[in-house]
Order: sequence, then C-alpha cells, then structure tokens
Amino acid sequence: MLQNAAPTCQLANFVASVRFEDLPPRVIDMARDLAIDWYGSCIAGGGARAVEALHRTCAALMPGQGPCTVLPTGEKAGIYVAAMLNAAACHVVEQDDVHNGSVFHPAAVVFPAVFAVAEARNLGGPAVIEAVVAGYETGIRVGEFLGRSHYVHFHTTATVGAIAAAAAVGRLLGLDTKQMLHAFGSAGTQAAGLWEFLADAADSKQLHTARASANGLFAAFSAAEGLTGASDIFGGTHGMGAALSQDAEPARLTEGLGQRWAICETSYKWHASCRHTHPAADALAEVMAREGLRADDIERVTAHVHRAAIDVLGAVIVPETVHQSKFSMGTVLGLVAVHGRAGVEEFDRLALACPDVAAFRDRVTMVHSPEVEAVYPRKWLGRVTVKTRDGRFLSGSTDDPKGDPGNPLTWNELLAKADGLIRYYRPQEAEARLVWLDRLTRLPQAPSLAELFR
Amino acid sequence: MLQNAAPTCQLANFVASVRFEDLPPRVIDMARDLAIDWYGSCIAGGGARAVEALHRTCAALMPGQGPCTVLPTGEKAGIYVAAMLNAAACHVVEQDDVHNGSVFHPAAVVFPAVFAVAEARNLGGPAVIEAVVAGYETGIRVGEFLGRSHYVHFHTTATVGAIAAAAAVGRLLGLDTKQMLHAFGSAGTQAAGLWEFLADAADSKQLHTARASANGLFAAFSAAEGLTGASDIFGGTHGMGAALSQDAEPARLTEGLGQRWAICETSYKWHASCRHTHPAADALAEVMAREGLRADDIERVTAHVHRAAIDVLGAVIVPETVHQSKFSMGTVLGLVAVHGRAGVEEFDRLALACPDVAAFRDRVTMVHSPEVEAVYPRKWLGRVTVKTRDGRFLSGSTDDPKGDPGNPLTWNELLAKADGLIRYYRPQEAEARLVWLDRLTRLPQAPSLAELFR
Repeated sequence: MLQNAAPTCQLANFVASVRFEDLPPRVIDMARDLAIDWYGSCIAGGGARAVEALHRTCAALMPGQGPCTVLPTGEKAGIYVAAMLNAAACHVVEQDDVHNGSVFHPAAVVFPAVFAVAEARNLGGPAVIEAVVAGYETGIRVGEFLGRSHYVHFHTTATVGAIAAAAAVGRLLGLDTKQMLHAFGSAGTQAAGLWEFLADAADSKQLHTARASANGLFAAFSAAEGLTGASDIFGGTHGMGAALSQDAEPARLTEGLGQRWAICETSYKWHASCRHTHPAADALAEVMAREGLRADDIERVTAHVHRAAIDVLGAVIVPETVHQSKFSMGTVLGLVAVHGRAGVEEFDRLALACPDVAAFRDRVTMVHSPEVEAVYPRKWLGRVTVKTRDGRFLSGSTDDPKGDPGNPLTWNELLAKADGLIRYYRPQEAEARLVWLDRLTRLPQAPSLAELFR
Repeated sequence: MLQNAAPTCQLANFVASVRFEDLPPRVIDMARDLAIDWYGSCIAGGGARAVEALHRTCAALMPGQGPCTVLPTGEKAGIYVAAMLNAAACHVVEQDDVHNGSVFHPAAVVFPAVFAVAEARNLGGPAVIEAVVAGYETGIRVGEFLGRSHYVHFHTTATVGAIAAAAAVGRLLGLDTKQMLHAFGSAGTQAAGLWEFLADAADSKQLHTARASANGLFAAFSAAEGLTGASDIFGGTHGMGAALSQDAEPARLTEGLGQRWAICETSYKWHASCRHTHPAADALAEVMAREGLRADDIERVTAHVHRAAIDVLGAVIVPETVHQSKFSMGTVLGLVAVHGRAGVEEFDRLALACPDVAAFRDRVTMVHSPEVEAVYPRKWLGRVTVKTRDGRFLSGSTDDPKGDPGNPLTWNELLAKADGLIRYYRPQEAEARLVWLDRLTRLPQAPSLAELFR
C-alpha cells in the first residue's frame, strides 16, 4: 500500500485489493444478477443503426479477428473491438442498469471491458466478479464525487465510464496500487462526453459507452505496460474535479470503502426508456391501479420531476424515432397508461404508431418539483397529478420505482426480462444465446469465460 | 451546402469543400514543409519509453497487421493503430510545430491520421494536402474559439486535436457538409485531455496526441458509415464552448475562412523543448550575442513571461528526466547559454548531466510580464533581463522567436533539422528513412502515399 492518504490513493488501493473471497455473498449475487441483466441488454441492442455503423467503422479501422465474442452477433474480435461493440450495443435499448446517486450506468461500460479481457485470457467467474465490483465501486464514487454540476453538460456514463472500466480491467490484470493510479490518470485524462447530442437526438450515446469502455480498458492495459498517469486525476489542481465540475467533493471518493457496497444500490430498469421517465411512469401506474382508471379517463397528467429530468427529456416533444421516444415523458406515460407496459416491443410497435399513445403524450406535462429535487439523486421519487375527465384531481406516487434497491426485480422477473431482450434481436439465434444466459446464472462458479461463450 | 448560417456549419462547409486546385501556392508549400518537419519528429520519438509502452498496449488490444506504416520502426499496422502510434511518437521530443494564436500543435494530430488513411487507400499528395489544410484550418480556429480559459485545465492539442483530425480525415474521405458536421459532433464529444499530468511529469502528453488523432479519425470514419453527431458541438448549449471554456467566441470559428490561411501562421520549433521556453531562450541568445557574454559572465537571468508559461513550466524546478527538462525554463536557458543549442542531442547528453547547465538553471527565474501577456497568444514575445557578474543589468528581446512566421526556418534549416531528427532514432536505419524524407520533399506531386513509404 502506498503511504498516501489522498482519497484518490485510498480508492486505488481499495480497488487493487478487492478479493472474491472477501466479498459478502449479497455482493457476489448482485454482480451475477447485474451480469445477467447487462447481457440481455447487450444482445437486444445488436441491430440498432448506430451500433451497426460503429461495427462497420471498427471493421474499416481495426480489421482482424480475435478471441473475444461480439455478443449480439457471436462474431469474434480482438479485446478492444469486442469491448467497444458490446458497450455500444448494451445501452441503446435503454434497459441497462443505473446507479441513482451517481446518475451513472455502470454495466454499460464495466461488463464489456471485463468480459472481453476475461474471455481473451481465459479467466473465470471469481476474477470477473472481483473486477466488476472494482469497476462499480470506483465508478459510482467518482460519479458522486463529480456532483450534480458535472451532469449539467457531461454524460456521466461517458466520463466516469472510462474510470470505472479502467478500475475493473486494472483489477483483472492485477495492477498494484501505483499502477492503478496510473490507470486512473490515463482514464481520467480521456474522460469526455457532452449532452449536446440530445439536441439533435444524435447517436453519441452509443459512441459514449463504446469509447468510455474502450478508453478505460486501454488505460488499464497501458498502465500494465508502464505508461504513467497523473497521480491525483480526481482531486488535482487541473484534475477532473477542477475542470469538469463546480461542486466536486473529494470525500465522496472513499465513502464507506469496504463497508458500503455501492454495487448493491444499483437499480434495474423495468421500462425500456430513459431512467428519468421511470418514477413518473410508476407513479401513474400506481394511481391508475388504485383508482381503477383507464387511459381514456385521464384528461391531463402533470409529472412533478427533478431538474435533470427536464434538462435531459425536455427537448423531446414529438419524437421522430423509437430511440428518441424513449426520452419522451409523454410517450412513456402513454405506453404505460394505454398498454400497461413500456418494454422494447411496445416501443417498437406502439411508441410512434399508436394514435392513443400519441394522444396521451400530448396530455402530459412536466413541472419542476422542489420535493422531488430535495432528495435527488439519492432517491428518485415519482409524483404525478392526474386530472380525470370527470373533473377529479388525483395524485399518484412511488418512493421506489420498479427496479430500485427498495423495489428490486425478482429472480424470475430478472430472467424473464433477459429472455425477452435476447429474443428481441435475431430471434432465430435466440436458443444459442439462451444457453449462454443459463451459464451466466452460474457466473460465480464459472471456471472460464472463454468456455461460457463457447 | 446546408442553408444554415451557424458558424459551425459554415466551418464544416468550408472544410468539406477545400480543393487542392484552389489553394494558393504558399499554402501548398507550407503543407509540404510541415509534413517534412512532422516526419522528422515522428521518427525521433520512436524510442521513447511512453511510445514503446503505447506500442505494447496496442499490440495486446488490437493485434494484427495492416497496410499502414508505423514510421519510426517501419512496421505495418491497421489505420487506427498506425495513426495512434505515429501520433504518440511525434510529440515526445518536443520538436513538432505549434500555432501561436491557438496554442495548439496541429501536426501531431493531423498528419498521423491523414498519412495512415492515405497510405491504406493509396491516395496521393494533392488529397493529402487538401486534408492537411482542412485539419489545420479547422483545429486552429476551434482552438481560438475555445479561448484562453480553455487552456487553464485542458491540453488544447488533445481536445481540439480530435476535431482537427476529424476534419482532415473527413476531407480525405470526401464527407459532405452534413457528414462533416456529424464528424465534428462525434469528435467534439470525445474531446478530452487535462494538464494534471504535468504535476507528476507523467506520460499523458503522448497518450493525448495518440488518442486525439485516433478519436478524430474514428469520428470521421463513423460519420462516413452513418453515425450521427450533434450539429453544433462547438456553440450548442451543452457543447464544447459551454462545457470546456469560459470565454468561447463563436465568431473565431469562421474568421477569414478562404482568405486567411491559418496554416501559414504555424511556427516551427528550433529548440527541442516546450514552446513556452523558446521566446526567452532566443531573447537570452540575442543579448549574449550582442554583448559578447559567455554563460560564466551571467549572475542571474529573469525571464519575463506570460501566465501560461508559469502554469505549464512552473512545476519543474529540478528536472528528473530528459523529457521533464524540456519543461524547465532554467535548463533550456542553460543549454542555450552554455552550449549554444538546445536540440535533441543536447538534451540527452547535457540537460541532466552537465554541471554548468545545472548551475545556470538555478540562476534563472520567471516573472509574469504584463507586456508579454498583452499580446499573447497572438505573439510570443521574448524578454529577459540579465544581471552580469560585473554588475551590469542588460535586456535581451525578440518579437519573433526562431521558427515563427516572422522568422521562419530556411529550406536548408528545415531539412537539416529533419535530417538530425531522423538520425536520432536507430541511426543504422537512417538511410531508408532519409529516402522517404527525400520523397516527402515532393509531396504535392506524389502519386501515392503507399509508394512514398515503400
């Protein structure tokens, strides 16, 4: 251990020392469950236009096969390309996990890099789980450290994603504390990803996860090869906190290291849409169930939301693409109200095509809520007010949207969600992918990732 | 042409339309000279520890051969890896070019990407020169747009470098205005690179050029494959100006497009050190020559400098590595005073080992100068005050450090510099590299880059 008490160094030291044998069973179970959840998302995204464009780009620039599986297609590629393409695919259907407090999607950047390296090096489940835990514990804390001001311009999953992937791969490679600091330094100085793409509904979200995962992977490998990086890329005078945030809090980097397992705070997505829509969707479902309302009974819905929801979703009034509709509060609430579900199939079939959803969408507005804001991002409260056609004003609410730690998916729901996502892309190949899913349910005992994907 | 008057769109339109046939002869000559200058720097950096670490990292993550030459070693690689490794190599000996007004090193990011693509696609000199001009004109303007506040935390060559490389490769691929905007969007959302590494003299400068060139290349190729990006990544609400600068000026993006050729404002480096040391070095040489002083005659030197010089160089008091000594004002002035030169050989042999240089180094201080600051970064004024051992106070000055547009290298100096850099790395292979240099002197007429490097 380095004799340096700086939070960055404490974090590096912790991450470099994570051992499977020392992890509480609930942490191991959670890592396994998140792997299953991520895997389904990754398969489901394989056919997206942006993912296919990135696939062709990699083929032109980095041709050649390798030992790693590009999961949606089953093709083989080198470590870097496989990580990049799996990361591009797994975020696009908006079903991958999210950590509330850091507003960060860890799976999308951690698993692609870890699985690619583990498959190439023939590593087993325990090594994978150590790495995944290292990635989640690091990325979540760095996201919290950067604070809410960071999220104004920056897509945290892109910026922090590189750090999380570097920590995860760094653990997999067995980096010591000093090397881990170099990996952090090299990853942090590549941290990038702006929200500007939302204004055009451009494809950058897929580029962001792809590059973050690959950049973190690259940083960890380069540290193993002796490339040095800044020793305090988080807290330094010209580090990420100074350059990319206005309210960075170094103490968050080490909060509860070894006692608090941030990975267990991760939320699963139930609806296939931007997480900022979920609390209101569940609050609407709550009041409709409680009062026995149908969509037609509702004249108007007001969603009471936090500021970031308005920032991220606000631009989308009338969505033009299915992906864009996942960022439309009105569409998501319309799918839930009219069809009772907002899964990948409902989005494809109904988000743009169903006139009832469109009509409902136009009856939804968002307003900023101090109550919701006060506890965000620690808690994502769902609050809606409904005006019925017969003149009543009703309130719907949830304090734990479906998938949150206080309201998790059951084992069966988790598997059913993954099953549905796997059948969503190339259904004719689903059987082979379901075999891999079955093996993933025994990830902690898997002797070899290479065998798992055989 | 898109009917959009936004500066970003005007710039994209200009860049997408650059034609070799329309370029003034002095622009073509300049592009050729910069290619020669860059090539020498690229060969010279091949043996640096950081470059070799990046080489091994690429070999582990992106194995496989390709049609592109890794210039220092002559190995063949795919487009992406060749661009990355040549970009890593060409910045490390601190001899590559710089544009004063944007504080940006264009060659280090533009040429690696352009040469790799041109070699793979068997393109000739005119296409290369169009692309290089597109890269320089874009990168320089985006650097000026981001302003001086950007440079406080961000290494402009890293951040803007991705845009410059995207513009250059975009032109080489024949992107239209709309595709070029997508390439800008994808490059800009990957723009990263923090100065924090300077605190540890870490290797990130090489990582920065490598990644910037590769990220820009990737952005351009992905745009050609249909990946969309933000349409106003510079001026948008969550774009680079908003997120990475406090004083961004959109008008700078289009300043003199088609009349002003920013590429011709580029400076060559004479001394093999950080550009912030050059004005004072030349001012010291000036007063020593004028007054007939030797190093021993000098009791103290005060360098009057701009703020950025203090920010970038200030950390280095007693350098521990040769690369670090290139950021030590005292060492650079010591080499010039004691040995009359601060080239790559002098740094290796004398920067750390010569007691006279070390003694001189300790007699140098920097102070902030309002006069120098007032015209920076447009002009980089050199001002020193010398106190002699016999009690005189003398001033040295230059308004145009060696290599600046007002004081350029002669053709013979340019070739001699390149010759020396080529012989610096693997001298036993210099003859083959000098053949390529000779062909590069006829770049505008070269029918094929693939043949040039055969």
